[in-house]
Amino acid sequence: MNKPNIPKGTRDFGPIEMSRRNYIFSTIRSVFALYGFQQIETPSMELMSTLMGKYGEEGDKLLFRIQNSGEKANEAPEKGLRYDLTVPFARYIVQHRDEIQFPFRRYQIQPVWRADRPQKGRYREFYQCDVDIIGTDSLVSELELVQIVEEVYRRFGIRVCLHLNNRKILAGIAEYIGAPDKIVDITVAIDKMDKIGLDNVNKELAERGLSQDAIGKLQPILNLGGSNTDKLNALRTILACSETGLRGIGEAQELFDRIAASNCQLSICLDLTLARGLNYYTGMIFEVKALDVQIGSITGGGRYDNLTGIFGLPNVSGVGISFGADRIYDVLTELDLYPATMPEATQLLFATFGDEELNYALTWAKSLRQKGIRVEVYPEPAKMKKQMSYADAKAIPFVAIVGGNEMQSDTVMLKDMQSGEQTQLTLNQLFDKILTN
Amino acid sequence: MNKPNIPKGTRDFGPIEMSRRNYIFSTIRSVFALYGFQQIETPSMELMSTLMGKYGEEGDKLLFRIQNSGEKANEAPEKGLRYDLTVPFARYIVQHRDEIQFPFRRYQIQPVWRADRPQKGRYREFYQCDVDIIGTDSLVSELELVQIVEEVYRRFGIRVCLHLNNRKILAGIAEYIGAPDKIVDITVAIDKMDKIGLDNVNKELAERGLSQDAIGKLQPILNLGGSNTDKLNALRTILACSETGLRGIGEAQELFDRIAASNCQLSICLDLTLARGLNYYTGMIFEVKALDVQIGSITGGGRYDNLTGIFGLPNVSGVGISFGADRIYDVLTELDLYPATMPEATQLLFATFGDEELNYALTWAKSLRQKGIRVEVYPEPAKMKKQMSYADAKAIPFVAIVGGNEMQSDTVMLKDMQSGEQTQLTLNQLFDKILTN
Repeated sequence: MNKPNIPKGTRDFGPIEMSRRNYIFSTIRSVFALYGFQQIETPSMELMSTLMGKYGEEGDKLLFRIQNSGEKANEAPEKGLRYDLTVPFARYIVQHRDEIQFPFRRYQIQPVWRADRPQKGRYREFYQCDVDIIGTDSLVSELELVQIVEEVYRRFGIRVCLHLNNRKILAGIAEYIGAPDKIVDITVAIDKMDKIGLDNVNKELAERGLSQDAIGKLQPILNLGGSNTDKLNALRTILACSETGLRGIGEAQELFDRIAASNCQLSICLDLTLARGLNYYTGMIFEVKALDVQIGSITGGGRYDNLTGIFGLPNVSGVGISFGADRIYDVLTELDLYPATMPEATQLLFATFGDEELNYALTWAKSLRQKGIRVEVYPEPAKMKKQMSYADAKAIPFVAIVGGNEMQSDTVMLKDMQSGEQTQLTLNQLFDKILTN
Repeated sequence: MNKPNIPKGTRDFGPIEMSRRNYIFSTIRSVFALYGFQQIETPSMELMSTLMGKYGEEGDKLLFRIQNSGEKANEAPEKGLRYDLTVPFARYIVQHRDEIQFPFRRYQIQPVWRADRPQKGRYREFYQCDVDIIGTDSLVSELELVQIVEEVYRRFGIRVCLHLNNRKILAGIAEYIGAPDKIVDITVAIDKMDKIGLDNVNKELAERGLSQDAIGKLQPILNLGGSNTDKLNALRTILACSETGLRGIGEAQELFDRIAASNCQLSICLDLTLARGLNYYTGMIFEVKALDVQIGSITGGGRYDNLTGIFGLPNVSGVGISFGADRIYDVLTELDLYPATMPEATQLLFATFGDEELNYALTWAKSLRQKGIRVEVYPEPAKMKKQMSYADAKAIPFVAIVGGNEMQSDTVMLKDMQSGEQTQLTLNQLFDKILTN
């Protein structure tokens, strides 16, 4: 018989991967809780009418459809697996609006599914971890998300830079140069300034269909430099005639002021190359990049003014970000930043020489667990070598060996698996040893 | 536009439900960790070849099949949503057997999907919470599962009775009375003894096709009474000729002895009416029933000797149980046993009278969060009534009100939302107040 397998693009997570993933999610969750965010969960399957038309034509093609076994194969399935957490969240807000207390602060950590072609780092099932504040347009919400980013990455020990931009500034620039549909081309061009220089950028802009007039007007923006404040001041002059642009500059200025007042230690830059693809963003947009690993954005999001409009509830403003758990996992692994002792790891294994010793160990184990110590008892008096290699393979730091001598003296022989040192200890001494380790 | 909806048989979990569900899962997880169990996760979708034929004909019909949008409607889908955690776990063991350290102690908490007809208490998507020890036939594993049951329900405050039986005893009884295929009929009959009496039970057994000889031989078993030890002793005499039966009695006896030696406080009974439907059980079987709520089994499981055989790896013995999160949720709700303060609930809201006060509150909030206090700042200086009713609706116990006076004296006015009492406090006094609450 062949070894069984799993569908392409999906993954099993074994104990080590899960302990790391749990560390990531519990770190993020505990920061969310400090800011009063509450968790919700939505069903894995949504009605096709909820999902279709929300992700563009390409997105629609990536939806997984679900059939009951009872349904005929040629019936159009009425259900699909969720593609992200944003559309189900918008659906949730509209459906439950009478029960929700606004401003609604929610987070959601669940898998999503996309029928993408599987490739390195891209999976057909992966977790998203979204946090949003809905029902207020106060920029205090943006500030809080920045503070959450600061605290989460401080706890992880990952050095990051937070890139900020504002969709209204981008709209203002496009309006100012007379090319309102060229926002993406403009941001791509600005992004290449450092690499290919002004002349080549201008050449590329012409190739992308910008008029010479538009390219001319774009020059001072391509040459923007200095601090975030310098850039905002320069933009204020350049975009003086664009009401939208000025509003975006005002929002960015207020957020920078709030961030400065909050004594934030995060490295932050106003990044006019940042556009973010999703078309529902209308205000501040964010991306977080790790400074010490080349991996793209590890967190991102922004302000949206009409997310719930698609489900018939207009004018509900919100702002949210999403933490990329898979990429954070890779960064922590590459930088070797996981804590030495994972929160759920076994602290002590009992290894025994015979049935009586096994019973003795079970009694001790019970007492240790009552003190909150995570203990395993090897379930049979197997060969000592086998029991020790089990502890070794599971990286259990201490083994309490029980033979006749130990039983007689009401002790165990504790082996420190790292140093190899052995010490004979009473139950109380063992408590102290493990608890202070 | 109509309110959006979700597929029938599925559920949204709002903040209150999620905080309760998180309390349930985190309680169970922390007990699992005390016993050294490690978490794994498997993909939501498995290959149809993994799923088909594992749940009987009825089960196969309840599988949800998944289609990529790219697949033709009349192609047979090659993937389906998992129906339980057991078959994916068996697949996982076989697929990863070279990486796994046996005995393998794993737990798994993930949703499963069944295309059942939705009805009260039965959903098409629900979580299972399974814990198993694989690769040893030591009854110490059964003991540990009993201890886990004891500790989990002690922490919940739910009074329960643990029902134990052994499949080999049931097989021995069926063998002894000469009706090896009538195990279910026998257990159903034993179950009705108290309600309908011996005569009616015998009548029903005849209707179910048992011979008079078989019914006659069953009489001493129907009349079994007394303590667990009394029952085992009686069975030892009755089943003296059944090797299988005697092995089952031996296993039950050893487990009862181990439980007694462990000073277990759980109410436990040998329950010959307990059969459990799943045909892969071969040894001890378990069910936990709440004593103070009528709701059926809230935890169940047993020993299986050949779960991985279906995937080509024979003779791997294991034992496991599954906690029914939805039913535990209902029991905790009915008995009102949730803790007064949920672990992630907001402890304090800042309510402010103006923009300057809002900035002041943001600074205080940052200091409080650094001490681990879960704080919200109402994101705009809205009408005080609106801010207070927000705190009320979210059951936030304290509101720190900030106006001009408080800013001048470097204090806040703390309102206890339960008593209505108001006190003017400095930052340090506020720390102490919240931390000692």
